[in-house]
Amino acid sequence: MKGNPVMSLIEGKALVAQGGGPTAVINQSVAGVVTEARRYPQITRVYGALHGIQGIVEEDLIDLTQVTTDNLEAVAATPSSGLLSTRIKPTPEICHKILEVCRAHGIRYFFYIGGNDSADTCRILNEGAKSANYDLRVIHVPKTIDNDLKVTDHCPGYGSAAKFVAQAFAGVNLDNRALAGVYIGIVMGRHAGFLTAAAGLAKKYPDDGPHLVYVPEVTFTKKQFVADVKKAHAKYGRCVIAVSEGIQDAKGKAIAEQFSGGETDAHGNAQLSGTGALGDLLSQWIKDGTNIARVRADTLGYLQRSFLGCVSEVDQREAREVGEKAAQFAIRNNLDGSVAMKRVGDYAIEYFLTPLHTVAREATEMPRKFINKDGNNITPAFLSYARPLVGTMPEAERIAAPKVKHLLQKK
Amino acid sequence: MKGNPVMSLIEGKALVAQGGGPTAVINQSVAGVVTEARRYPQITRVYGALHGIQGIVEEDLIDLTQVTTDNLEAVAATPSSGLLSTRIKPTPEICHKILEVCRAHGIRYFFYIGGNDSADTCRILNEGAKSANYDLRVIHVPKTIDNDLKVTDHCPGYGSAAKFVAQAFAGVNLDNRALAGVYIGIVMGRHAGFLTAAAGLAKKYPDDGPHLVYVPEVTFTKKQFVADVKKAHAKYGRCVIAVSEGIQDAKGKAIAEQFSGGETDAHGNAQLSGTGALGDLLSQWIKDGTNIARVRADTLGYLQRSFLGCVSEVDQREAREVGEKAAQFAIRNNLDGSVAMKRVGDYAIEYFLTPLHTVAREATEMPRKFINKDGNNITPAFLSYARPLVGTMPEAERIAAPKVKHLLQKK
Repeated sequence: MKGNPVMSLIEGKALVAQGGGPTAVINQSVAGVVTEARRYPQITRVYGALHGIQGIVEEDLIDLTQVTTDNLEAVAATPSSGLLSTRIKPTPEICHKILEVCRAHGIRYFFYIGGNDSADTCRILNEGAKSANYDLRVIHVPKTIDNDLKVTDHCPGYGSAAKFVAQAFAGVNLDNRALAGVYIGIVMGRHAGFLTAAAGLAKKYPDDGPHLVYVPEVTFTKKQFVADVKKAHAKYGRCVIAVSEGIQDAKGKAIAEQFSGGETDAHGNAQLSGTGALGDLLSQWIKDGTNIARVRADTLGYLQRSFLGCVSEVDQREAREVGEKAAQFAIRNNLDGSVAMKRVGDYAIEYFLTPLHTVAREATEMPRKFINKDGNNITPAFLSYARPLVGTMPEAERIAAPKVKHLLQKK
Repeated sequence: MKGNPVMSLIEGKALVAQGGGPTAVINQSVAGVVTEARRYPQITRVYGALHGIQGIVEEDLIDLTQVTTDNLEAVAATPSSGLLSTRIKPTPEICHKILEVCRAHGIRYFFYIGGNDSADTCRILNEGAKSANYDLRVIHVPKTIDNDLKVTDHCPGYGSAAKFVAQAFAGVNLDNRALAGVYIGIVMGRHAGFLTAAAGLAKKYPDDGPHLVYVPEVTFTKKQFVADVKKAHAKYGRCVIAVSEGIQDAKGKAIAEQFSGGETDAHGNAQLSGTGALGDLLSQWIKDGTNIARVRADTLGYLQRSFLGCVSEVDQREAREVGEKAAQFAIRNNLDGSVAMKRVGDYAIEYFLTPLHTVAREATEMPRKFINKDGNNITPAFLSYARPLVGTMPEAERIAAPKVKHLLQKK
């Protein structure tokens, strides 16, 4: 290690927290922040807030300076927010309270691991600290299985969730081949189809499913859907379909929203997950619109972001590194911002810092070039984009044996 | 290898097929049969039938004697029936046709990998061959994720599915801890609660979920369910619940059957899987009967038996061995029957052959000693039974750090 060239010399505590939905590698980012921050003499303590900003408001803090290396590494390898999470949105009142807690505890470095809502919390907090003339470095550390953050090439958490989805569809494709019929798998993703598209990574043989992939970026119609299924079923004698929970009608309304009972979170998002209603509706449409008898629908649900034992090594490493870089940008370079990744070559990554407002609030969608012309499948461009993020997967193999000649007359 | 002592000297072909729902290790049993059978000089060919007995009737056979070792091992490691499957039940006409095909091709050894329905097919076929005075060895090779076969200690396929369920609930427990609420996971298992009970293998810390486990062996009532959830939620501030798709009312009718639309398979079983309706109903019951706002339900679905990349090494090995033993019993010992496992010590297995009629048709349930007195959770006796079958699992770890003292007044 070289010395510390343009370092922040403000002595104080660092605070790390996690917000929004968990991922399989979100604790790698905590470990990255903690291990890196603990190396600097001006960092007197590294605290963790429980349940995100809610824990800060309630002074529900733990001292991560006293965590053992073994414990920290074991937590890093465990899915789901080890510091627990929250979905609350910072009001001016909450923001004021957070600054009060930071002042009282001498917290000068704040790291918030989350999606675009968490980035927005960072932005509001950063502006609040400036107005109050309180010196506080604020870094947003990206994570989301939806992969929908702006600026960055992709998001930590996506690769592992994509791997789970790909392995789920690889298995389901085998199952559907053994006992033919139509299988619908509903995948998470409110506005972005990245995770649903990952189902396509499962394909190996030319007739493997998913045979159809529907994402929120393309208007979903019952008519087109039923026609697509009929056609694919006629061709393959079976049909595996990946559908995003966020598929929308022509008016941009989520098809699933009619089942949500109006339940929304603090950010105004309607509940889409945690119910099987969308899959059951699509099943019914196929049963009504075709003469296919065996139609099954699964909603992959919370397993996509929390399953213990399915992780992308690349994702794991990058989640760790965004945490480490966050600590470096704040402490070594005295900067605020959101850590982002740039893809260089095929495949390498460079980390950089982007202003908080460029990531906060708004999310991205999947580029049109990743979706085929008919809007019912993915393209090779998507495969090239996603494969390095998911890394190695187990392989499905078919029996390669010659047919035996018939000896009896055909019935 | 020693010589062949009391061997069947009938020269002929062997035929292997798979029936019913796939498992993660069902192809290990194919590989076991094929590799073992190919070693005997009186076995002129080893054939595989595609889609179980349906493929035999249609002479849809492939020559597994010409499969490469590498291909066979890769298939063995792949979940879901590599020879494809069927749910058709053998009528006397089908049975007659099968014998006709066996005669035409000189098939003298038949191995059928499946559950109790497949064992029944073996029994019918065996009796048919005897009546027709056709020398045919018939061996049933056990597999089922439900773990509900009679005689055997447990069934190949169960350990891997149990591992998937355990890892799913371990992850979901972490997720539920990070963002509190009620989580319901619906697990496969028509009459036996073994697979649902496996959710309990996920627990590590004393307050880990699942906090409630409901199996088909205990009568399920809405009143008790809502009361249980209220109580658990009050205690833990959250609640993770594992529910079998086969839970039954006091009359022994599956709660889920009201959604199946009367769809049944050839064996008269109502469709329970492939819909989210049961989970959604139970969610609604909790929302109506308590003041808990965040209630989510997932149906674990087909991933339980087909997910690519979650396998128990013990299960893998045993599935291989039941296949090998099947070939040995038929060829080396000239016997018919169903391969079964006896647990000796903690943990070792001995393989033996049981008459086909002892396994055919009827299934077992989970012993009452595996279910707690209140009928809403599992017992340590179940854990002792199931742990060796599932083998090693990834571990979930919590952060161990001291609380920071409050410096501000509590609000």
